[in-house]
Amino acid sequence: MMRRRSFLQGAAAVGATAMLPRRASAAADLKPIYAQIEKRHDEALARLQEWIRQPTIAAEGRGITEGRDLTMRLLRDAGFGKVESVSTDGSPGIFATLDAGAPRTIGLYFMYDVKQVDPKEWSSPPWDAKLVDMPKLGKAVMGRGAVNQKGPEATFLAALHAIRGAGKKLPVNLVLVAEGEEEIGSPHFPQIVGQPAVRAALKRCEGIFMPSAGQSTDGTVTIALGAKGVIECELVSTADTWGRGPKKDVHSSNRARIDSPAWHLVQALNTLVTPNGDPAIDGLFDKVRPVADRDRGYLDDAAKRIDEATVKKSLGVERWARDASWRQALEDLASKPTVNIEGLVSGYTGPGGMTILPHRAAAKLDLRLVPDMTAADTLAKLKAHLAKRGFGDIEVNMTGGYDPNSTSPDSRLTRAEAKIYERAGIKPILLPRSGGSWPGYVFTGEPLKLPAGHFGLGHGQRAHAPDEYFLIESTDPKIFGFDAAVRSHVDYLHELA
Amino acid sequence: MMRRRSFLQGAAAVGATAMLPRRASAAADLKPIYAQIEKRHDEALARLQEWIRQPTIAAEGRGITEGRDLTMRLLRDAGFGKVESVSTDGSPGIFATLDAGAPRTIGLYFMYDVKQVDPKEWSSPPWDAKLVDMPKLGKAVMGRGAVNQKGPEATFLAALHAIRGAGKKLPVNLVLVAEGEEEIGSPHFPQIVGQPAVRAALKRCEGIFMPSAGQSTDGTVTIALGAKGVIECELVSTADTWGRGPKKDVHSSNRARIDSPAWHLVQALNTLVTPNGDPAIDGLFDKVRPVADRDRGYLDDAAKRIDEATVKKSLGVERWARDASWRQALEDLASKPTVNIEGLVSGYTGPGGMTILPHRAAAKLDLRLVPDMTAADTLAKLKAHLAKRGFGDIEVNMTGGYDPNSTSPDSRLTRAEAKIYERAGIKPILLPRSGGSWPGYVFTGEPLKLPAGHFGLGHGQRAHAPDEYFLIESTDPKIFGFDAAVRSHVDYLHELA
Repeated sequence: MMRRRSFLQGAAAVGATAMLPRRASAAADLKPIYAQIEKRHDEALARLQEWIRQPTIAAEGRGITEGRDLTMRLLRDAGFGKVESVSTDGSPGIFATLDAGAPRTIGLYFMYDVKQVDPKEWSSPPWDAKLVDMPKLGKAVMGRGAVNQKGPEATFLAALHAIRGAGKKLPVNLVLVAEGEEEIGSPHFPQIVGQPAVRAALKRCEGIFMPSAGQSTDGTVTIALGAKGVIECELVSTADTWGRGPKKDVHSSNRARIDSPAWHLVQALNTLVTPNGDPAIDGLFDKVRPVADRDRGYLDDAAKRIDEATVKKSLGVERWARDASWRQALEDLASKPTVNIEGLVSGYTGPGGMTILPHRAAAKLDLRLVPDMTAADTLAKLKAHLAKRGFGDIEVNMTGGYDPNSTSPDSRLTRAEAKIYERAGIKPILLPRSGGSWPGYVFTGEPLKLPAGHFGLGHGQRAHAPDEYFLIESTDPKIFGFDAAVRSHVDYLHELA
Repeated sequence: MMRRRSFLQGAAAVGATAMLPRRASAAADLKPIYAQIEKRHDEALARLQEWIRQPTIAAEGRGITEGRDLTMRLLRDAGFGKVESVSTDGSPGIFATLDAGAPRTIGLYFMYDVKQVDPKEWSSPPWDAKLVDMPKLGKAVMGRGAVNQKGPEATFLAALHAIRGAGKKLPVNLVLVAEGEEEIGSPHFPQIVGQPAVRAALKRCEGIFMPSAGQSTDGTVTIALGAKGVIECELVSTADTWGRGPKKDVHSSNRARIDSPAWHLVQALNTLVTPNGDPAIDGLFDKVRPVADRDRGYLDDAAKRIDEATVKKSLGVERWARDASWRQALEDLASKPTVNIEGLVSGYTGPGGMTILPHRAAAKLDLRLVPDMTAADTLAKLKAHLAKRGFGDIEVNMTGGYDPNSTSPDSRLTRAEAKIYERAGIKPILLPRSGGSWPGYVFTGEPLKLPAGHFGLGHGQRAHAPDEYFLIESTDPKIFGFDAAVRSHVDYLHELA
């Protein structure tokens, strides 16, 4: 009852100011909003810290309900009128709308889960969300989820608070979908987006974006016109499915007379790649679309504008795979499918040795997909490849994944994004595709076919790694701190209107 | 001072009864000793439980000093006159002698360390040493080290207590060496045995044995006329030595442009074995001695006397490697060198996935060696094999290991062993070689060239596995309980005299 009433009240309140001419007043309107951003800095930061302090880790089934509830409260506090939990076969999603009575409606994609942590590896505890001094950067909040994705999401929510605080109405209506399984490959996200009410709301959107902190340490921003798809899976070799080897760990002397599931896995894995470590799965490249001329142009430009040495240093590499040039390395990242080992685990993994013949061996893989590969087709090819070579007994357990996505540089969403960056003095670097993945295919694919991407200034790093951070107070004039990142969202929403 | 005085007192006390004619009185002598075994059952069991409750794990550097000190006390309590700690570059050894004034001297090899545990996997906590009921077997003490090797060692010590308790003197002198690194491949054991005083004492021995619980669940006992050698090593692939790949874990999307130390390791490992999982290391078989006719005879006999189905069931296997016959599987265990994966570890090993490209991958291997292979030569061949195939950057860190050993079936030690078993109604099964390993080469090799093996009746299982146990009170007339196992040591010492 409460939820329905607040939705109706929200709609009525918005209706009262809906007749103001938007275009003409936009520039003048924003100053009081900017003032509100500064005034509300502490409360916005506290909101982000509270969020980080609530761990939600899908891979460990940890804090799902608490994280979902907190996110729903944060959305209501930011002015979303309708905020509903959406059941799935896994973690619940969230569907929220904010009807501002505006002519245009924009979609938002949020995630409320984060990656696992090993607290031992962190210099500041991952759930403390402490403010730390970062050399050459300024003050940052450090914690799991700081940049991926709670920090950027919190800047977006702070923009909504500032607009309301200034007594203004939102220039666009919002439709928001959130999931709590992004970090395990969004296995149930299609169930959320496929709900009739959610799909109907998304159909009204011009496009959909996820808040992000797009700035590198040199202040540049890239716009990726799509993302690779992904399959995360575990390959498991056991005596149970193989019919060979021991059903439990036995003394290693038995290797002389008992087969080894670990060797069986190593031999299976070895068939999946070329000596260079590139995919060797039968037919994997059949559907790979060649790099388009348009994309070659973007890559030529990107290779000139992104500093190779800085990237190499931040990644800790001395040379690129296949000894590629910088230009080629950028193309590879955007256009090459991959088969990667995330983890290997078998038998004894502690200090020293342990003379056992393990009964089980597993490899955690991720495969990155480019157009026109699909997750379903690639998984089938992986299984057929293994079966053909005598490894059909090896279980291939897909834990998550989805198809690649693409968005046109000519969409209003992308053009507005570029415009806001340019207004901030930053000429964005366009890339044909991000090397990483996000489940944008549910928006860009059938039946919605929406433009979909990321937006946001500001800076943070070490997603999925220890000491993840999001910059709050910047000492580098080229890099936006928290309040400036919030302003970029205010600007973007008005530009989209 | 205390140590020296008790040594002299012990020697004097023994001297007083040294003139009794041994042979003639032997049979009559043993009854009071047997009575003492029963009388001292509870104290002997408590001694074993105290020993198990002191974890000593070389792989984890845990409880070394405490385990060494406790073992030294147990040896003194059992009548050893001289008990000294022997420093090494690793865990200290123990050198102990018991001079009974007897004409013959027998060597003993003890270990005071045990394998690691994962307490979650145990039905009774591994350091509680609780008495548990074992279906069809009787009462057993359960805990890490119960059968490997504290239980059998405690039965030997109980034999010494019983002999002294009966007012008898030992029929042989004893020289004992113990180490605390058996479970990591005895890397410093040669330093202990190589000490001039230790070597001089061992030179006086007719042979050397380790107490063991030799009975299977069907009551049979095998005598292994030697053991395989072993190399335990870790193969490590990192960007630091490879010069390729990332120096820290990076986001897995980078696989498109950054090399993977995990794939590099998988490819290196794959070269080490044939499709059957057998060794494919260059030249590994050059020094492998063919199976001798004598050994074929032992194997023919063993294949008839050991029940294949029982062994398969206890190991949890449905078929042998290469679909070998039972006779062939026994030969393989005794005669084939192996390359086994004990453990694989790279990147993320927890639940679900983690989209990283790991900077490091490691495989824990053990290689089993047969005559005339040596640990040093095999390690060199492994390294050369990898280097020749472009994997010379992969670190090969040997953590322990040693050469194989052999003992003649015609040695007094082995003949006495067989005689005691036969007297107990058990015709021992002779095997050319144990599939497992122990560092007997320090005794059987130059310069000592002693017969060396194991001795003991009684039963226990699950060495290196959860729920390791050693039988205390047997309900199966074919299997010896604790007191009967103690008696076997009393008999053996008198037979050796």
